[in-house]
Amino acid sequence: MLHRDRVKLPKYVYPPEEWRIVEKKFYPRLLEGSESIFSIGNGYLGLRGNFEEGAPVFQHGTFINGFYESWPIVYGELAFGFAKHGQTIVNAMDAKTLKLYVDDEPFFLPTANLIRFERVLDMRQGFLDRDILWETPAGKQVSIRSQRITSFVNRHLAAISYEVTVLNADAPVVISSEMFLARTIQPLPEDPRLARAFKEQILMPRLHVSRDRRILIGHQTKTSRMSCVCGVDHVIELESPWSSQTSASEYAGKVVFSINAKAGQPIRLVKFITYHTSHTSAAEELADRAQWSLDRALGRGFAAMQAGQKQYLDDFWQRSDLQVDMLHKEPERNLEVQQAIRFSLFHILQAAGRAEGAGVPAKGLTGHAYEGHYFWDMEIYVLPFLIYTSPQIAKNILMFRYSMLPKARQRAREVNQKGALFPWRTINGEEASAYYAAGTAQYHINADIIYALMKYVHATGDTDLLYNQGAEMLVETARLWNDLGFYSGRRQGRFCIQGVTGPDEYNTVVDNNTYTNLMARENLLYAVETVETLYERHPERFDQLVDRTQLSMQEVAEWKKAARQMYIPYDEEMGIHPQDDSFLDKEEWDFANTPSDKYPLLLHHHPLVIYRHRVIKQADMVLAMFLLSHVFSEADKRRNFDFYDPLTTGDSSLSVGIQSILAAELGYLDKALRYARYSVLMDLGDVGDNVRDGVHIASMGAVWMVFVCGFAGMRDYRGALTFDPHLSKRIASIRFQLTVFGRVLAVEMNQAAATYTLRQGEELKLRHQGDEICLTAEAPVVTVPIK
Amino acid sequence: MLHRDRVKLPKYVYPPEEWRIVEKKFYPRLLEGSESIFSIGNGYLGLRGNFEEGAPVFQHGTFINGFYESWPIVYGELAFGFAKHGQTIVNAMDAKTLKLYVDDEPFFLPTANLIRFERVLDMRQGFLDRDILWETPAGKQVSIRSQRITSFVNRHLAAISYEVTVLNADAPVVISSEMFLARTIQPLPEDPRLARAFKEQILMPRLHVSRDRRILIGHQTKTSRMSCVCGVDHVIELESPWSSQTSASEYAGKVVFSINAKAGQPIRLVKFITYHTSHTSAAEELADRAQWSLDRALGRGFAAMQAGQKQYLDDFWQRSDLQVDMLHKEPERNLEVQQAIRFSLFHILQAAGRAEGAGVPAKGLTGHAYEGHYFWDMEIYVLPFLIYTSPQIAKNILMFRYSMLPKARQRAREVNQKGALFPWRTINGEEASAYYAAGTAQYHINADIIYALMKYVHATGDTDLLYNQGAEMLVETARLWNDLGFYSGRRQGRFCIQGVTGPDEYNTVVDNNTYTNLMARENLLYAVETVETLYERHPERFDQLVDRTQLSMQEVAEWKKAARQMYIPYDEEMGIHPQDDSFLDKEEWDFANTPSDKYPLLLHHHPLVIYRHRVIKQADMVLAMFLLSHVFSEADKRRNFDFYDPLTTGDSSLSVGIQSILAAELGYLDKALRYARYSVLMDLGDVGDNVRDGVHIASMGAVWMVFVCGFAGMRDYRGALTFDPHLSKRIASIRFQLTVFGRVLAVEMNQAAATYTLRQGEELKLRHQGDEICLTAEAPVVTVPIK
Repeated sequence: MLHRDRVKLPKYVYPPEEWRIVEKKFYPRLLEGSESIFSIGNGYLGLRGNFEEGAPVFQHGTFINGFYESWPIVYGELAFGFAKHGQTIVNAMDAKTLKLYVDDEPFFLPTANLIRFERVLDMRQGFLDRDILWETPAGKQVSIRSQRITSFVNRHLAAISYEVTVLNADAPVVISSEMFLARTIQPLPEDPRLARAFKEQILMPRLHVSRDRRILIGHQTKTSRMSCVCGVDHVIELESPWSSQTSASEYAGKVVFSINAKAGQPIRLVKFITYHTSHTSAAEELADRAQWSLDRALGRGFAAMQAGQKQYLDDFWQRSDLQVDMLHKEPERNLEVQQAIRFSLFHILQAAGRAEGAGVPAKGLTGHAYEGHYFWDMEIYVLPFLIYTSPQIAKNILMFRYSMLPKARQRAREVNQKGALFPWRTINGEEASAYYAAGTAQYHINADIIYALMKYVHATGDTDLLYNQGAEMLVETARLWNDLGFYSGRRQGRFCIQGVTGPDEYNTVVDNNTYTNLMARENLLYAVETVETLYERHPERFDQLVDRTQLSMQEVAEWKKAARQMYIPYDEEMGIHPQDDSFLDKEEWDFANTPSDKYPLLLHHHPLVIYRHRVIKQADMVLAMFLLSHVFSEADKRRNFDFYDPLTTGDSSLSVGIQSILAAELGYLDKALRYARYSVLMDLGDVGDNVRDGVHIASMGAVWMVFVCGFAGMRDYRGALTFDPHLSKRIASIRFQLTVFGRVLAVEMNQAAATYTLRQGEELKLRHQGDEICLTAEAPVVTVPIK
Repeated sequence: MLHRDRVKLPKYVYPPEEWRIVEKKFYPRLLEGSESIFSIGNGYLGLRGNFEEGAPVFQHGTFINGFYESWPIVYGELAFGFAKHGQTIVNAMDAKTLKLYVDDEPFFLPTANLIRFERVLDMRQGFLDRDILWETPAGKQVSIRSQRITSFVNRHLAAISYEVTVLNADAPVVISSEMFLARTIQPLPEDPRLARAFKEQILMPRLHVSRDRRILIGHQTKTSRMSCVCGVDHVIELESPWSSQTSASEYAGKVVFSINAKAGQPIRLVKFITYHTSHTSAAEELADRAQWSLDRALGRGFAAMQAGQKQYLDDFWQRSDLQVDMLHKEPERNLEVQQAIRFSLFHILQAAGRAEGAGVPAKGLTGHAYEGHYFWDMEIYVLPFLIYTSPQIAKNILMFRYSMLPKARQRAREVNQKGALFPWRTINGEEASAYYAAGTAQYHINADIIYALMKYVHATGDTDLLYNQGAEMLVETARLWNDLGFYSGRRQGRFCIQGVTGPDEYNTVVDNNTYTNLMARENLLYAVETVETLYERHPERFDQLVDRTQLSMQEVAEWKKAARQMYIPYDEEMGIHPQDDSFLDKEEWDFANTPSDKYPLLLHHHPLVIYRHRVIKQADMVLAMFLLSHVFSEADKRRNFDFYDPLTTGDSSLSVGIQSILAAELGYLDKALRYARYSVLMDLGDVGDNVRDGVHIASMGAVWMVFVCGFAGMRDYRGALTFDPHLSKRIASIRFQLTVFGRVLAVEMNQAAATYTLRQGEELKLRHQGDEICLTAEAPVVTVPIK
């Protein structure tokens, strides 16, 4: 059950379209959420969907992945080993603003007489377009057309093309192109999911330069000592006379264009924007780099940028598109699903595409909720899609995770453990969770990372990464597990892991969380397997590994023993796996008397109240049954799902997608579809009532899995690709492509049959409902009935 | 076992004496601790043992019970119901300083040539004396004798008599009598047991007045809006000519006396000091009150103050003294015990005597560790001694606790519960614990308070307090328990209480903590009994109670059922009560490989590491066996003690005394004695290596119980006074008095016999080793052999 079911899905406001999100009217009440939805980004740079005019605005947002400030966490009561420094993504200089004045009257959306308004997120091409026809009080009709791009080709670059035409009269026009630091000081949040607000200015001025129509302003963060330079330059095209004035100071700059516009003659202004950030380089050096970026952008022009963007997106969609035809009697409802799926994939790309050296924040670069931190979402929710469609991006993320290993080793020491413990939430690799019960205690992140590594290696065959960085991570994570658990006399000598928190944050610091124990076992086994392979077959690499980790084979024997002896809770009487040792002993939550406005429970109940009840925030055992599907019999899965599903509030957006996948597998197709709908509309339908704070990237990753792993029934444990379709009667067809071992597999399913096509590569084996299928270059297409 | 055994007891530095703590030399290395040990106070006002000269100093300390500042607790990650405001006792204006200059050279202890140095805490009379003979570099011999008093008669008053005599020459003498605000800004503490340091000034100036030799300075705290006025005035007696100069500003004032001293002629200066504080009155009104206090003090003079103090202490010792003769072959070791016992009782009086409207802070008024907060220590550790020796003080404390009831009701709402939940730590009645696992989760404080109430009522017969305030507290605490627990199908329908922390803070947020369940049952039963008595026999009072609490008798039936069905964990196989549901499943702590410098564990291990191991901070089950002795058979007690004692680190000073009592009861007399020694020397021997932060008032309360309840074997469950002596062979005799129901019972025990004497009152029944003894006014003395 999803107790949020009681909350009706908000009205869907963006008309269904194949490739675009369209806003046909200016809706003040949607302002907050649409800033997130119309965000554009490239994984490095993210611009919230603020209007060019700078107002009205909910939150000016310009985020650079990994550009953060740190601060000492102050604890009311400190204890040994608590995380020491918080980290928060910084809201960088805003360079999106272009204020427009006609007859010296400002164009201001809420009061303007709009004859036409259309805003379009063009997911096919990667543009944010706006088209407005404004009638001034003096009766002048002004066409305003803009296009905003954050470039996937040059990740430091964004641009806004802004075209103004006074259609029916001559008029003096002023365009003020600005950049400034939004100094909004927000109160400290009551909602723990939001970000910290700094009370004082954290960006220290380092430089400001202006020349012609170019401005550069540089800052350094006060504590983390990161530098950031923002630069803008402009190209203006028009026949009428114009002049411009440029000014800049420490926190603001502007270029003001004054034009005597002729009726019907367009004013074409392009604003190029660049950001450069660094831990090590000074602002002066970044300013040089910004100059080069702007020089190059001006040299190539806006059209080239458009073309590059389009080509990047062509490639992306060609590899990654997921097409779903629903059978709803209203065609619009079908389109709605397709649109939302593409919206999800597009936003994942915007969050991860050019992250390079950074991770994927929980909200991507669309808002600063969760402080711009990287969590396990990255590995468990986002990577599956990327591994099978953009393996290079997946690799970058794993390499970034690997770069945290030294700090993870240090963190393990801080919590009195051997090996490495990856941070529950972080930007710079240090643990930033100030609440260990739903933070540091989530040791499962170690196993989650290894799980993603394993999936990546099996899908790509990239043993190079496995034998190098992977092996080192495997050794250190296995060490952690082996040190953390113990052989319990009270459990017949089984290996128990106590005092941990699983994925479900409504049950914290528990003993033998089944998910954790299962995933830790997997982690240990993969470490054993990898190290043994190196030892037996790659002695040089093995020596390198020993050199880096001081590994002894005795340790490997211990890991093997711990994995074999791992305790997996099971209740014989109920035939289910308890979520943890004490879960079944808890008092039942009184769902019947919990009004819908008391969800999410965490915002209305003291943690102790939640913890002492049998209630679940998000899929935990159900997630284990998805990730480690082969461990469970179908009967087991059914009993577990039937038990856990009604206890799950879905107070986390990470939950409902996974529940949908298991429901599909078990043939609960109506439920699977209902959950899928929540998952698909998480942001566009604002299911969680918090899209204003940013879109839910992990949930978007789950959307892909809902169709590929849920309805199309794909599993890939240890690289064995299997499909066991469970198409709901309301799904006409599903089509997607997977990149596996450099080969490209196209999958198409409908109610009757599945067609597997090898688009690229020599040979590929898979199983369809248990039967092996071998695709070859000679016989690349196989169509099989769905039983 | 006490794992601190490995830490040798520090050398005992104060020579054993019956009634005094004497420092024969100025020991710079003891400066920090001796400031705590030589603290004087009266329960309202506490002055740390800083030297008159103001330096050297570890911590200027002037504490007024309940004078606190509050501040919003900032959580790295906030959650619903977390305590909102911290509270910290404020270090008030320091008025202890009297700087001395001879020939314009300052007297500075560390460099002075001291011919004589003696500092004496006179516990018999309640004075702090110092006697110094200083030879200046010019060869002048200067006698400096001072006496410091914090008055028990007028709790707003302190005084310092300061007598200087230049013995062998004439000399210009300057005495600068100062008051100032110690602005020490300390770094935020790494040790969670210490107090918060404020980064900014929290005392806002409100007034400063000076006239003749009188100064008044008033402040108001920034956030809690409490006012405090400190006033001083001086009387000087001497034959030589002198002059004085007085000055005052917002944060400091001084009166400087210049004297042409004649050889051999004493200069006698008395500095009277007064403090007035208020939540409601403005500084101006407090200044008036301070003027009156000073006028009165000057009018009566220092000798009257001495006499009043002496009389108050006469009364106290007559009622409260505990005499123990040890049989150590070195008489000094025997005296050492007697001295330390009196030191404990004296400091309890100093912490509680005139608290009136405030509680007993963990460190009394000797330091600001634990922020000056009141904990359960007050009820469980300090009250037993006071109930049986100073019932009026005990009553004041219970009335103060009752005054928190409205906030406790509100707190229960904040954590989604019915009834009332008293704060785990507080000054103003609001929960101030920023770490719920070892704070709010300690619901047992409710039952602890009720336990103390019950003990008080049974020892005094004060049914008035029971039927009024007591009944209201009983109703609200019973409501909380009834709401908190549930009837568990998995426990045969027993009433279970989950997600709580017991006294042992090394195992937090556990299910069915045996201590909590037992104490909650007691709480419920006493509520049932009291309400039923009112219902049946005092209908008017019952109506009042219903009026105040909207009680229905249906609730009482529910409480009865919950108490009857209360689940008490018991492990059949081991024959012990597990501390909680998961305690026995935990990994054993590797004591053998824990070096002594890793204790207390909490300063060297992440909480998660401690929580997942079978290791105990402080007596928990063992405490239950003391408080609810009648519930357990002797065999049960022995098995439990044998199991828990080796797991107990004693990292809390609350533990070892209780362990001693149970060891005595079970006949482990060597162990009982060893634990007693640790308990007795907690502060004078600096067992915890932290006496610098203040003395351990709760542990001092335990000292009294160690002898009265441990070796003398007194129990008093529900007012049935029983004695079952277990005198160690090394104890010659124990003598003490108890005030019971207005009667006075003197008890004397030696190796052969016990003598019970009714000193006051008509009749008193008690049991000695199972046999009833009835003392009457006619036959007030009974001597019985100890079997």
